[in-house]
Amino acid sequence: MTQNDSPLSLLRRLSNGLYVVGVAHGIKRGGFTAAWITQVSFDPLLVALSVNPGHASFPLLTGAGAFAISILGQGQLELARHFGTQTGRSIDKFATQRWQPAAGGAPVLSDAIAYLDCRIVACHPAGDHELMLSEVVGGAILTEDVLPMNYAETGNLDGSAALYPPRF
Amino acid sequence: MTQNDSPLSLLRRLSNGLYVVGVAHGIKRGGFTAAWITQVSFDPLLVALSVNPGHASFPLLTGAGAFAISILGQGQLELARHFGTQTGRSIDKFATQRWQPAAGGAPVLSDAIAYLDCRIVACHPAGDHELMLSEVVGGAILTEDVLPMNYAETGNLDGSAALYPPRF
Repeated sequence: MTQNDSPLSLLRRLSNGLYVVGVAHGIKRGGFTAAWITQVSFDPLLVALSVNPGHASFPLLTGAGAFAISILGQGQLELARHFGTQTGRSIDKFATQRWQPAAGGAPVLSDAIAYLDCRIVACHPAGDHELMLSEVVGGAILTEDVLPMNYAETGNLDGSAALYPPRF
Repeated sequence: MTQNDSPLSLLRRLSNGLYVVGVAHGIKRGGFTAAWITQVSFDPLLVALSVNPGHASFPLLTGAGAFAISILGQGQLELARHFGTQTGRSIDKFATQRWQPAAGGAPVLSDAIAYLDCRIVACHPAGDHELMLSEVVGGAILTEDVLPMNYAETGNLDGSAALYPPRF
């Protein structure tokens, strides 16, 4: 088996959800969309979040050592678009949304279907991203009976198609 | 926001696919199901795979430093069941399946919808699992127009519900 299809066509067949990661540090607050999140351990209960270190919210994330994952539901494309846009990096994207702080202080979207309250326990370089191993210390279901959004549902909303190498 | 729902009810709202990880080292071959896989970098093209180090195939995985991810499609529950069972740890689960070796030697299910050929570049402890950062060096689409399986579709096939702590 030596035939290689394009990295984009192959990697889009991995399944991911779509999430809004909320961070707060001092008086600053930020939020961004993320798809590269997965559970990695049962006990302790750990998730891994892969983050672009060039992102405007990255210093808030590492400074606070904590974040909240708001899980978007199917059909919440407008919320994804609001937090996924690259314009307005200096504005607080939560300001126009209904939100509440998690126990750790990070902002949670009240309209998400659920949230996880996370504490960073280790950070590892991962190519052009940083991988944050994080303990889930709490969370709640906010809307019952709505399925989580699939990242594939968002099309190329985040413009990521252009970031894949054209071939192996 | 201090209400905490159960870890199981919250974590099942993260979206994952279902995959068969194939490994080969020397004359030995093995395969197991995995859901905790996500892309983590564009350039280099990296994925993270979280693996239980007590798994029978773990020594093959670390010995070979390579593996193949066969991506299961919707409806392929029988394949998931075959590779997900905990019985018969010493048998070659590929023996009764149609398979071919990837360029790196790891077995790929011919009936999967696509596969990724991976090389381990770093390994980090992650609670009760080990996180394998791995470069995707090739792969191919095997079946067009079939959507990937969602892990949620498998119910409690792998018995993982019992592995979550009952509360935070």
